[in-house]
Amino acid sequence: MPDIRPLGDRVLVKPIEQEERTKGGIVLPDTAKEKPQMGEVIAVGTGRLLENGQKVPLEVKVGDRIIYAKYGGTEVKLNGVEYLILRESDILAIHNEK
Amino acid sequence: MPDIRPLGDRVLVKPIEQEERTKGGIVLPDTAKEKPQMGEVIAVGTGRLLENGQKVPLEVKVGDRIIYAKYGGTEVKLNGVEYLILRESDILAIHNEK
Amino acid sequence: MPDIRPLGDRVLVKPIEQEERTKGGIVLPDTAKEKPQMGEVIAVGTGRLLENGQKVPLEVKVGDRIIYAKYGGTEVKLNGVEYLILRESDILAIHNEK
Amino acid sequence: MPDIRPLGDRVLVKPIEQEERTKGGIVLPDTAKEKPQMGEVIAVGTGRLLENGQKVPLEVKVGDRIIYAKYGGTEVKLNGVEYLILRESDILAIHNEK
Amino acid sequence: MPDIRPLGDRVLVKPIEQEERTKGGIVLPDTAKEKPQMGEVIAVGTGRLLENGQKVPLEVKVGDRIIYAKYGGTEVKLNGVEYLILRESDILAIHNEK
Amino acid sequence: MPDIRPLGDRVLVKPIEQEERTKGGIVLPDTAKEKPQMGEVIAVGTGRLLENGQKVPLEVKVGDRIIYAKYGGTEVKLNGVEYLILRESDILAIHNEK
Amino acid sequence: MPDIRPLGDRVLVKPIEQEERTKGGIVLPDTAKEKPQMGEVIAVGTGRLLENGQKVPLEVKVGDRIIYAKYGGTEVKLNGVEYLILRESDILAIHNEK
Repeated sequence: MPDIRPLGDRVLVKPIEQEERTKGGIVLPDTAKEKPQMGEVIAVGTGRLLENGQKVPLEVKVGDRIIYAKYGGTEVKLNGVEYLILRESDILAIHNEK
Repeated sequence: MPDIRPLGDRVLVKPIEQEERTKGGIVLPDTAKEKPQMGEVIAVGTGRLLENGQKVPLEVKVGDRIIYAKYGGTEVKLNGVEYLILRESDILAIHNEK
Repeated sequence: MPDIRPLGDRVLVKPIEQEERTKGGIVLPDTAKEKPQMGEVIAVGTGRLLENGQKVPLEVKVGDRIIYAKYGGTEVKLNGVEYLILRESDILAIHNEK
Repeated sequence: MPDIRPLGDRVLVKPIEQEERTKGGIVLPDTAKEKPQMGEVIAVGTGRLLENGQKVPLEVKVGDRIIYAKYGGTEVKLNGVEYLILRESDILAIHNEK
Repeated sequence: MPDIRPLGDRVLVKPIEQEERTKGGIVLPDTAKEKPQMGEVIAVGTGRLLENGQKVPLEVKVGDRIIYAKYGGTEVKLNGVEYLILRESDILAIHNEK
Repeated sequence: MPDIRPLGDRVLVKPIEQEERTKGGIVLPDTAKEKPQMGEVIAVGTGRLLENGQKVPLEVKVGDRIIYAKYGGTEVKLNGVEYLILRESDILAIHNEK
Repeated sequence: MPDIRPLGDRVLVKPIEQEERTKGGIVLPDTAKEKPQMGEVIAVGTGRLLENGQKVPLEVKVGDRIIYAKYGGTEVKLNGVEYLILRESDILAIHNEK
């Protein structure tokens, strides 16, 4: 696991490939204008800083499977694996299969 | 029902098809520039976070039938069913028929 | 009367046709770049939520005749009648004839 | 006088024609990119709502002669007379001749 | 002196012509993309209203000679004299020669 | 080490060349639309000033290896060495190898 | 020294020519998209006004050598000398050589 600490309200995510996703039962439409993606949370930042100085912890935690807006974030590759650094506001929902 | 927890002020919605809507008595004009849609709320986020750190619960609840602005949200398909993830600010009104 | 509860600072309005308006004495110029409209308030939202968590009730109430900016809002048709859902900020003035 | 109550920080204004204005001694240049206008305040809103919930009364009052930015506001005609609904932020100055 | 009360954080300014300015020792470059101007403060508004409801008096006072950004403000002509109505944020500095 | 004190929430960064980075195990994709970069923090500002007057210290400290968005910041060269001045909001994560 | 008092968070700066800068050891790249500049602080404003009414003194003081973003500010020439009026937010760092 890479030693990366995202800053503030940022999250390090390992994208889940389309093939895996189909096994999980979820299919994301090809035609959607703003195509969402799934991923697993690998590391989370210290939280979102409000204008009153309060630090609010993120809603997602390490291990959560999330759906996020595709256009968001920045890609990084570490030891040959591709990750994504997102802001929490680019995350739409948590989707933990039981 | 899918196990999806929307984040913050987001809501998971199951759109209601045009045919069903006509039965319910409501008709949405084809000519409207900004065409509204109807749907049923399936899951709601934890609420909207204000800059003073207060978390405000959403006005809509699971089971509500809502009217929302069409341009908003992101589509996801789960077990063959299409859903939409919206922010509460994209919801115009609650329309619960009695 | 439709069972529609607008969200937050939104208002459900029944537009008043140009013909009726002329009887009321008000004429809105055709040449105005940003053409205002008149309508009757049918339902109001719970109020505007401020960043300090306070909910402020709307200034307009059910039954008020209002002047609103034309470009605003979203049209919905219910039982064959056309309505408009506006934010209160799209309402310019209350014009109750005595 | 029309029974119109502007909303919030809005003001109902009766524009003063160019001819009248010349008599008052003020001439507004034709070449000005952003041409100001003069008018008389006919009705004022309840005030500007701040994010802390405080309502701040407007600086202008009924009867004031004001200078306002031309691009602002919405025209309405009532009983054959043209009025303008402005936000207070579109008003530049009060110009009461003695 | 015209009886004009600027609103809020606005200021009434009498521009100082290029010829006068050269006598004062200051020369403003012709080539500057955003060309500043000099003027004398004739009247000031009641102050800037903050979101916490506090009214903050302006830093400039009547009689101050100021440097302001050229693009800002609105021109008005009164009794044949040209004035400018600016917001305080368009004023760059006070330049009172001794 | 240059005597440069960044202002506010700014940070002075020495970029780490692509060659060095490969040794560290991280590879940043050439095809990424918004290509991230790595660097070492050389100096940090006094912190971010909130609207309530509170000064919040930066999350990064001198010596941290960081990943930052490429488009951000301003280049300066000092004694023949190239540095970058970034805002903390342009920093995505801390990546300290052990 | 010119008698100029910058307003609010503004600063009067005397740019340092490229030739002088090279002597100081700093070289600013010609190819940088957003080319920084060096200057000396000649006068500072009263501070930045926050929305809570607090006035925050500037971080720079008279005599500081600063690096600033080139695109910012407005040029003024006084007694044949060129100055620049900047907001503090256009200043990147303080660079005082010992």
